[in-house]
Amino acid sequence: MISSSLMFLVSRRRLSASAAVRANVGFIGLGNMGAPMAANLLKKAHGVTVFDVNAHAVKQLTAAGAQAASSARGVAASGVDVIVTMLPSSPHARAVYTGENGVLSGVKSGALLIDASTIDPTVSRELALAAAHKGAAFIDAPVSGGVLGASNGTLTFMVGGAKEAFDKAKPILECMGKNVVYCGGPGNGQVVKICNNLVLGISMIGVSEAMNLGVKLGMDAKTLASIFNTSSARCWSSDTYNPVPGVIAGVPSSRNYDGGFGSALMAKDLGLAIAAAHDIKAPLPLGGAALQLYNLLSAHGLGQKDFSVAYQFLAGQHDAKK
Amino acid sequence: MISSSLMFLVSRRRLSASAAVRANVGFIGLGNMGAPMAANLLKKAHGVTVFDVNAHAVKQLTAAGAQAASSARGVAASGVDVIVTMLPSSPHARAVYTGENGVLSGVKSGALLIDASTIDPTVSRELALAAAHKGAAFIDAPVSGGVLGASNGTLTFMVGGAKEAFDKAKPILECMGKNVVYCGGPGNGQVVKICNNLVLGISMIGVSEAMNLGVKLGMDAKTLASIFNTSSARCWSSDTYNPVPGVIAGVPSSRNYDGGFGSALMAKDLGLAIAAAHDIKAPLPLGGAALQLYNLLSAHGLGQKDFSVAYQFLAGQHDAKK
Repeated sequence: MISSSLMFLVSRRRLSASAAVRANVGFIGLGNMGAPMAANLLKKAHGVTVFDVNAHAVKQLTAAGAQAASSARGVAASGVDVIVTMLPSSPHARAVYTGENGVLSGVKSGALLIDASTIDPTVSRELALAAAHKGAAFIDAPVSGGVLGASNGTLTFMVGGAKEAFDKAKPILECMGKNVVYCGGPGNGQVVKICNNLVLGISMIGVSEAMNLGVKLGMDAKTLASIFNTSSARCWSSDTYNPVPGVIAGVPSSRNYDGGFGSALMAKDLGLAIAAAHDIKAPLPLGGAALQLYNLLSAHGLGQKDFSVAYQFLAGQHDAKK
Repeated sequence: MISSSLMFLVSRRRLSASAAVRANVGFIGLGNMGAPMAANLLKKAHGVTVFDVNAHAVKQLTAAGAQAASSARGVAASGVDVIVTMLPSSPHARAVYTGENGVLSGVKSGALLIDASTIDPTVSRELALAAAHKGAAFIDAPVSGGVLGASNGTLTFMVGGAKEAFDKAKPILECMGKNVVYCGGPGNGQVVKICNNLVLGISMIGVSEAMNLGVKLGMDAKTLASIFNTSSARCWSSDTYNPVPGVIAGVPSSRNYDGGFGSALMAKDLGLAIAAAHDIKAPLPLGGAALQLYNLLSAHGLGQKDFSVAYQFLAGQHDAKK
């Protein structure tokens, strides 16, 4: 078992708790999510050394007070105690950690590596093992909350890794987020994230199908939702984030599906769930069908709209030509 | 619009409120659900006249104090103020109401007809219209709560029809159930029931897929469920009726999926949703896939097991040969 041997390796090394709040932090991956997260770290008075292939993104952070390094290795070799990475996919994470100029080629023993990317849990476990061989602790800490949560410092982090690494990471993560949830050993943060979004992606389509059917059969949408919400159809997709415009104020469905969590991002997370499930032959009949529907939304120009736009699409109210 | 013209017809007739609690009630359909429902009516001191094609079922009710009629028409012609029907499907309901010896051939003007069957909402609306032409009020009042709820008098009724007919029916329904929910005009009780169970049938499979994936990827089931239950995967199928044995005490998954709501019954309700949706060309991509999975459960001998057995089946833990 990768996870148990890994936990053993990591638990043999004591991580310094004193480095927590005033640590020098490296930050790699300054995209839509990473840039505001790094900016929030800077605001909390940590020293921050950044790297991104996008020079413009780096310049914005250095203008705000960050140091710049010329590679992921450069960040690691700059002597930082903690490195946070926020990357788009598994191949990017592999390259940034284990590539020629990657973090692990320059990391110091005792460093804490926090990968906030959403990637394949198997890759997270590989990286945790590779980090442990360099004497560094690695935790996977994928987020929910989107760009708004990253800007406002209200992200939720789902963390997998050794408990003492989690304890050390918590004050760092709390500079960027509101909720930091320990999910167990290495990779488990990713597992929780993809499993959560698997349920969410499915239930949003289920609620959308049922609300559309009910409304088309003559029900008032608010009445139907209110009965769902006190019965066995009750779920977050109905009672907190209802996809029908006007049922709940302030959610994306009530502002033309703008903001929120894009259909294309939901498709990405479902793709990760399906890939992980395929590796272990776990069947996802509805997860697979849900992915196809979110891809269909992207094909119809709705990839950047909140994923609850599934309702509008099923209802036939979206016309890409208009 | 069928529903608005129907509401108009019904609202023109005043229904007598005085008939409510001490009414003479007819009861047609003494199956697993109907028999205990009729018995509960008898216990509350209503005069009850029954009919069923199954003579044995009739005999058990007459032994408990009911009168017997020789047909549905016979029940209607016996002078009862209220008739309750509990039938297996739309064709049965059509035959019992509009057939040669049906209720409508013998019903008196001003009678209240309560159909507690779960059937196609379009058929409910047809029957409500046909009843209105005879001067009778018809409400659709499908239930949730199963055989146990029918025996204990704790059913939930979802009621569609004119509001004054609902008000008159409420004390009758409260002899057999705990919750009586008004859903709007004719057919809306059926619409709410099939839409609720559409969400439920989908979300149970979604939770089952995600719990199986998470557990197979190394998560503790209780930890995973507890994180779902405070995040966007939160739903009744996870926090109240979790399909993984041992996560919640006292639910069917923790007693070998016995009792509860059978997979075959869930398939029946999804079939109704899909038929109703097909008539109006409302797409149900996940509802359709969910129906196929519940039918697969029946094909594997799990039709009488609670529908949360989907988890066990996806996990490959059920072996029909053993």
